[in-house]
Amino acid sequence: MAENRAILYAFWLSSCSWRVRAALHWKRIPFEERPVDIVKKEQQNTEEYRAINPHQKVPALVIDNETLVESMAIVQYLEDTRPEPALTPKSPLQRARMRELCEIVVSGIQPLQNVGLRPQFETTEQYTKFTRYWTDRGLQTLEDMLQKTAGKYCVGDQLTLADLCLLPQLYNAVTRHKLDISKYPTVSKLYESLLKEKVFQETHPQNLKSKI
Amino acid sequence: MAENRAILYAFWLSSCSWRVRAALHWKRIPFEERPVDIVKKEQQNTEEYRAINPHQKVPALVIDNETLVESMAIVQYLEDTRPEPALTPKSPLQRARMRELCEIVVSGIQPLQNVGLRPQFETTEQYTKFTRYWTDRGLQTLEDMLQKTAGKYCVGDQLTLADLCLLPQLYNAVTRHKLDISKYPTVSKLYESLLKEKVFQETHPQNLKSKI
Repeated sequence: MAENRAILYAFWLSSCSWRVRAALHWKRIPFEERPVDIVKKEQQNTEEYRAINPHQKVPALVIDNETLVESMAIVQYLEDTRPEPALTPKSPLQRARMRELCEIVVSGIQPLQNVGLRPQFETTEQYTKFTRYWTDRGLQTLEDMLQKTAGKYCVGDQLTLADLCLLPQLYNAVTRHKLDISKYPTVSKLYESLLKEKVFQETHPQNLKSKI
Repeated sequence: MAENRAILYAFWLSSCSWRVRAALHWKRIPFEERPVDIVKKEQQNTEEYRAINPHQKVPALVIDNETLVESMAIVQYLEDTRPEPALTPKSPLQRARMRELCEIVVSGIQPLQNVGLRPQFETTEQYTKFTRYWTDRGLQTLEDMLQKTAGKYCVGDQLTLADLCLLPQLYNAVTRHKLDISKYPTVSKLYESLLKEKVFQETHPQNLKSKI
C-alpha cells in the first residue's frame, strides 16, 4: 500500500504547506509528510530536493504518479479528482467570494511576507517593516470582505479553500509577525474558531515541529 | 441593453486588468471599460471608486448585478457561469499544470513587481532592483515549466487562463522592467506568438492609452 500513499514535501512553518496538508486531511487522502527544512538547513537547495521540485519551493505533492507544485494548483487538483468532501461552494457567486478571499491571501499577503524575501533587504528591520506592512494591509482587506461573507467559516457555514488559506496566514501573522489581530473582529473570531476545528488541530505545525 | 453590459473598472497598464479584459473578449461577453488611473491621478483613492471597490484596486467587474474583485476570482467566475468558449483544459492534470503556471505569475511575480510597492522602498533604485529580481526569477521558473507543458499555448494547443496570466506579465517585464527575455527561449517564443493572437491584439493596453 505504501506506494499508493501521496507524499507531501513540506515545511512545518510554511503556510502554503499547511493549506495542502489540511486539504489532504479533510479529503481523507492517505499521505506521508516528508519534511524539507527551508530555513535552517536550506534543504530546498539540495540536489535531492531539486530532483523532486526544480523550483526549490515547498510544498510539492507526489500523487497519482505525478509531482504537483504550487499549493493552490495542488488543492484544486485534489478538488477536481476527489470532489467529496468538498472544499468549494456549489454556487458560482459563493465560489467567486471564496476565490476573492483566497487571492487576498495567496497574492496579496503570502508573497509579501515570505521568508524568501529576506536576502533582498539590507537589514532585518527593513524586511520586518515591509512584511508587517503588507500583512496588516491584507488583514484589513480580509476584515472588510469577511464582514460580508463569513458565517461559521469564511464563506457561510461551509469550510472551504478560503479557510485553508486564511488560518495558516493568520497563524503566521500572530506568531511570526507578532501582529495584533484583535482590531479585526471578524478575522479574530474566525482565527479562534478555526484553530479549534479538527482539520486544523490535526494538521497544526506544532504537531510537526518535533519531527524536524 | 446598456444595463445588461458588464462594466470593467481597469487601468490600461495593469496586468491583472488585462487578464480580465482578455477573458471577457474571449468569451464574447459585452462589456464597457471604465478607466481608473491608478498611477498619475490615483483615482483608486477617490470616494467614487471606493464605493465600487473599497479595497481601491483594479480590476473590478460589475456583472450579473454583483461587483467582483480579484482578477483570478473574476476570470474563474466567468468560466463557471459562461463555460464556452473554455479557458480551462478538461483533464484534471492539465488543469493542474495550467494552475501551476497561473500561480507562478499571480503569486510569484505580479505582487512582487507591483507599482503599489514603490512607497515601501526608500529609493526608486531599491524598488527597481527588487522588482526586476523577482520578475526575472519567476521567468526562470516559467521557462522550466513551459518547456514541459507548452505547445502552441502555455498548456498544449488550447488557449487557457495560463496564457491570460502570462502575456500581460511578459508585456510588463519587457516594457516596464526592461528585462531581456531572450534568454528564456520558450517564454520568448510564446510572447511573440501570443502578441499576435486576436484576443490579445484586441485587448492590448496600447488600444486604451489614448482614452486615459
